Amino acid sequence: MRVGITAHLDDAAMDLCRRAFATDTLYRADRTGGAPAWDESFAACEVMFGTIPAAWIPRLAALRWLQLESVGYEYYRDASALIRQRDIRVTNLEGQFAHPAAETVIAGILSLTRGLDELSIARQERRWRSLEIRPTTSLLARSTAVVLGAGSIGRQVRQVLEAFGCRVLTFARRSLLAELHGTEQLDVVLPECDLVIGCLPSTPATRMLLHRDRIAALPPTAIVANVGRGSLIDEDALAEALNSGRLGGAVLDVTHEEPLPVDHPLWTTPRTILTQHTGGGHREELIDKARFFAANAERFRAGEQLRGLVDCQLEY
Amino acid sequence: MRVGITAHLDDAAMDLCRRAFATDTLYRADRTGGAPAWDESFAACEVMFGTIPAAWIPRLAALRWLQLESVGYEYYRDASALIRQRDIRVTNLEGQFAHPAAETVIAGILSLTRGLDELSIARQERRWRSLEIRPTTSLLARSTAVVLGAGSIGRQVRQVLEAFGCRVLTFARRSLLAELHGTEQLDVVLPECDLVIGCLPSTPATRMLLHRDRIAALPPTAIVANVGRGSLIDEDALAEALNSGRLGGAVLDVTHEEPLPVDHPLWTTPRTILTQHTGGGHREELIDKARFFAANAERFRAGEQLRGLVDCQLEY
Repeated sequence: MRVGITAHLDDAAMDLCRRAFATDTLYRADRTGGAPAWDESFAACEVMFGTIPAAWIPRLAALRWLQLESVGYEYYRDASALIRQRDIRVTNLEGQFAHPAAETVIAGILSLTRGLDELSIARQERRWRSLEIRPTTSLLARSTAVVLGAGSIGRQVRQVLEAFGCRVLTFARRSLLAELHGTEQLDVVLPECDLVIGCLPSTPATRMLLHRDRIAALPPTAIVANVGRGSLIDEDALAEALNSGRLGGAVLDVTHEEPLPVDHPLWTTPRTILTQHTGGGHREELIDKARFFAANAERFRAGEQLRGLVDCQLEY
Repeated sequence: MRVGITAHLDDAAMDLCRRAFATDTLYRADRTGGAPAWDESFAACEVMFGTIPAAWIPRLAALRWLQLESVGYEYYRDASALIRQRDIRVTNLEGQFAHPAAETVIAGILSLTRGLDELSIARQERRWRSLEIRPTTSLLARSTAVVLGAGSIGRQVRQVLEAFGCRVLTFARRSLLAELHGTEQLDVVLPECDLVIGCLPSTPATRMLLHRDRIAALPPTAIVANVGRGSLIDEDALAEALNSGRLGGAVLDVTHEEPLPVDHPLWTTPRTILTQHTGGGHREELIDKARFFAANAERFRAGEQLRGLVDCQLEY
């Protein structure tokens, strides 16, 4: 089997791949320029591992299985017809980001609700501001959260919030776990909720789901968080609401444009935490990624169902 | 019944007390100087509400029940013999601090493990440092935590950590919930744990439990957190370990001295979050406190078991 690897891996993760594919032929993309460079050998590969440019797909004549190194499929929207016509299986790293993304978004939310930003300034100034800060803090245990999405991240976020004693409502069109299936139901609860946490893929249905009117419908103490895809939120409306004090805060792991342009208003809005798409990461991320691919490759060879199979029509 | 109130309450909380004790005689301490002032009327009160100076106890000749406005009993150690001899019941605000304290300590820990400190600096500088910060983050889901204490705070901290997927071991001498009952057992696990979280009262047995040798036994990536009482930790040893990089971080809601003296080394140690004893607080704290007292007063009148009864021999 010929296997092309464009994924961002360190030496330990690449070694794991070499061992897992010892009887196959591996081609490793040159990534010295940052993005992976095209290599003529890829044209003969049955398997590719990495979030390759969608424009490569017509040239990958032998491709039968593409293992992405992310969860998002949105870059392949325009290639979907070709992918389905050629019956290429596409898998994502399903579940690999649930723990780190949930931990990052809860970290950001708690940092705001428990006053860590103010406490950090107080420490720099060596000032004891306990009695001032204490009554400004609030509790997840007395909050209502709407979690947008019932994928692995949304489910993990919900589990943790519930352990804190938070009341959680999940919005997801198809999931049996969700209390809210349509936007009409969502619109009913937004005025009463303390937290809205986006854990959704980027699809035509989720694009700008949190538009200007929905942001305006939130209570002025509400926190908007997003650890799914940046296209979910009207960022201009969000920045205006934060700047005018009509919103309690924002925790954004993802934005429409990444890196965030230097002149973007979200660099300076108050009570805003930008986690810069680190939410999916952790120390062992790269070796985990290689391990996921290697385990899926065993399933591929055995003709078994692959893990993380993307529905190219649903786009997730 | 004569009731003396020294507790720090706002108008809404005081109103609640007035309604709850409408048929009693209330005496409210003057707190304009910060600490409550002695009032001769207190000498005739059967009930006192507030963390009164221990020195008042001999003068409170009619006292039958003291409702503290905290959980800690350590200020009354020297008065314990008199309290027991006179059969005065002492109750604390049991359970009232479990949610806020757990939320604050988890907030601080996640802020360190998910790199929020670095991300906050990056935002001030408008720098996109995603790829640098991402591999420096770690996961509660792959961590082992030792929770010191199985009271309401320790139990809530454990519940949340377990929801994150963290492996938790509880240290508590008497609790059936605890895996570790003695310091010998504690010493076995310290070298393997990623988090140590103090949720203990101040007693002779917990004083300096985290002494220099135990801090030295922790892995260099470990985080020490404390949301119980400051007397738990050798702060000089902690500051030295943080300054020399022999420890991964610290999250301290409590310290030996509060406010922390301006020349204290913990103001400037790296990877340290000082939450300044805000851990027990939240927006509705004062009204909750009054509600707890009013509910206990109903039990007191009915001759029922009071909630939060302190064992003056165990000192918690």
